[in-house]
Amino acid sequence: MSKYWSSLVGELKPYVPGEQPKMANLVKLNTNENPFGPSPKVIEAIQNELDDSLRLYPDPECQALKDAIAGHYGVNSKQVFVGNGSDEVLAHIFQGLLKHDKPVLFPDITYSFYPVYCGLYQVESKVIPLTESFEINPEDYKQPNGGIIFPNPNAPTGRYLGLEHVEAIIEANPDSVVVVDEAYVDFGGETAIQLVDRYPNLLVCQTLSKARSLAGLRVGFAVGNEELIEALNRVKDSFNSYPLDRLAIAGAVAAFEDREWFEHCCNGVIRERERLTEKLEAKGFEVLPSRANFVFARHRQKPGADIAAMLRDKGIIVRHFNKPRISDFLRITIGTPGQNNALLKAIGDVFFR
Amino acid sequence: MSKYWSSLVGELKPYVPGEQPKMANLVKLNTNENPFGPSPKVIEAIQNELDDSLRLYPDPECQALKDAIAGHYGVNSKQVFVGNGSDEVLAHIFQGLLKHDKPVLFPDITYSFYPVYCGLYQVESKVIPLTESFEINPEDYKQPNGGIIFPNPNAPTGRYLGLEHVEAIIEANPDSVVVVDEAYVDFGGETAIQLVDRYPNLLVCQTLSKARSLAGLRVGFAVGNEELIEALNRVKDSFNSYPLDRLAIAGAVAAFEDREWFEHCCNGVIRERERLTEKLEAKGFEVLPSRANFVFARHRQKPGADIAAMLRDKGIIVRHFNKPRISDFLRITIGTPGQNNALLKAIGDVFFR
Repeated sequence: MSKYWSSLVGELKPYVPGEQPKMANLVKLNTNENPFGPSPKVIEAIQNELDDSLRLYPDPECQALKDAIAGHYGVNSKQVFVGNGSDEVLAHIFQGLLKHDKPVLFPDITYSFYPVYCGLYQVESKVIPLTESFEINPEDYKQPNGGIIFPNPNAPTGRYLGLEHVEAIIEANPDSVVVVDEAYVDFGGETAIQLVDRYPNLLVCQTLSKARSLAGLRVGFAVGNEELIEALNRVKDSFNSYPLDRLAIAGAVAAFEDREWFEHCCNGVIRERERLTEKLEAKGFEVLPSRANFVFARHRQKPGADIAAMLRDKGIIVRHFNKPRISDFLRITIGTPGQNNALLKAIGDVFFR
Repeated sequence: MSKYWSSLVGELKPYVPGEQPKMANLVKLNTNENPFGPSPKVIEAIQNELDDSLRLYPDPECQALKDAIAGHYGVNSKQVFVGNGSDEVLAHIFQGLLKHDKPVLFPDITYSFYPVYCGLYQVESKVIPLTESFEINPEDYKQPNGGIIFPNPNAPTGRYLGLEHVEAIIEANPDSVVVVDEAYVDFGGETAIQLVDRYPNLLVCQTLSKARSLAGLRVGFAVGNEELIEALNRVKDSFNSYPLDRLAIAGAVAAFEDREWFEHCCNGVIRERERLTEKLEAKGFEVLPSRANFVFARHRQKPGADIAAMLRDKGIIVRHFNKPRISDFLRITIGTPGQNNALLKAIGDVFFR
């Protein structure tokens, strides 16, 4: 460790995102991108913003985007916070709302950025094991804590927790902020945003990277009580006044305006997920029930790492986590029908050559 | 303060950026944007990136951009860090390189985000007064410290510190990181990037918002020893894997490739700055010598706040800081010749009606 580093830096265990290889003709099923492109209206809106006005700062409040999100969900724009991808939003949440004397609770198998944020902001945490069937048990979240966060559907399991159970967790913890990280909710779940007016301790976080096909544009947001949003604004305005550029704001607004495209893409992904699940089961995989744009599956005989390596040799990339309890699983993004067929064919070759 | 807020949140004193009013026909000389638009090649490059690939994550390493910056300055791409505007880069610098047992030093009159970062990351600081003529005296930075940061040219004064004096500060502090924040350096200063290979404790920070006319795209960067860059990468990868979107990366690369446009714009701004300075002096203003794309000026009779208010009534916005030592000054961005003439005419009206 360098003498120039702040003492924190040496202790950090940075997040490792799924790789973004630059090889052509890859079947890329490792980072849960949407197989559909963004709405043509998004492209058009960015096009219209693409001119000399780039010399000017964007609106630091991103008011147009907050209005679009608020309109979509029927909330007030003061209940909306936006950021440079939901990762940035989550970072501000950990720093501004989850750092308390008691530990923040999250599942043992979950988005692996959560413990990284805890390291960055020195937030104490306590990991709550999922059940044997990889589900969140609301009863486990009835214990002293300084905050609670979980994805719903959970990642990388894909399992969804019904809204009544989410509500049970929120109700049982009136003194803590409960963050529901809904990156994948539009692929078959129900959003907890409908509950924010009833629970001052509920914060819902979403992204435009998945259901809105805009991973390349970096936009995320949170919806909750104004008091919670105010904390995030204070942190953001102490960090970076202009986290969203002019093009991202314009594109994100258009994405919320084109509901038809959004529903078309979500339905397409859901249909392919059901088909892929069935075919994988027929090939001897156990597939956890998923409401996300990926499936989490293990083969009854072959280790996950081996299958991932063999698929890679055939130009197909899926995500494998070398972690306790899930090292036999693969997280497979739902691709286009063609990509999914290529995956199934490659798996067939692996097992039946 | 809400019981849901982390204890830090209530203590934050967020930065207040120059306002971004939505009124039309405003002569906007308050946030140091470039009067020239970005290079046409930037627009073209973004255009070429604007397609279905927005569904895919950007390169988390932004390698193409690091290569372009490294090529421009003749350094190795491992000596380059990029972020979502230089504000984000500065935030990571405060957290990763300036938080130590001893206080970080910066001028009393300087970029007002520095004390905000100190609040956000609980970095102890010590303010060093500028000289009576608003200059940085390198001798003042020979005292125990945990890091040093100053803009060069300084903001909002516009005063430039010759590279030999910058070097004296770096040499005198081999155990501390010295950060030279060069947001405005291209308007007549010399960059300290040429010194990074000689001083492992030197970190230079720049932005594409000013000389490269891309305030609306949010791109900043830092250049220094690999060990310093590694600290920033560790912080960034613990905060947000993908801070730059696909369009911003493409546009920023093109901005570095079009040297001719860049020099054309910088020279145009410099010419107008010299003209504006002369005219303001003729109207009874004291104008500090500026190497930035703004001037910092006070009238010998009239208070700055009054002049700012009167200009505002005429649809011209400049920046006024209600702070000790500088409350009589106005920070005036160099606009187009037409905007500058409108400003001069309005000032004439104010004083000679």
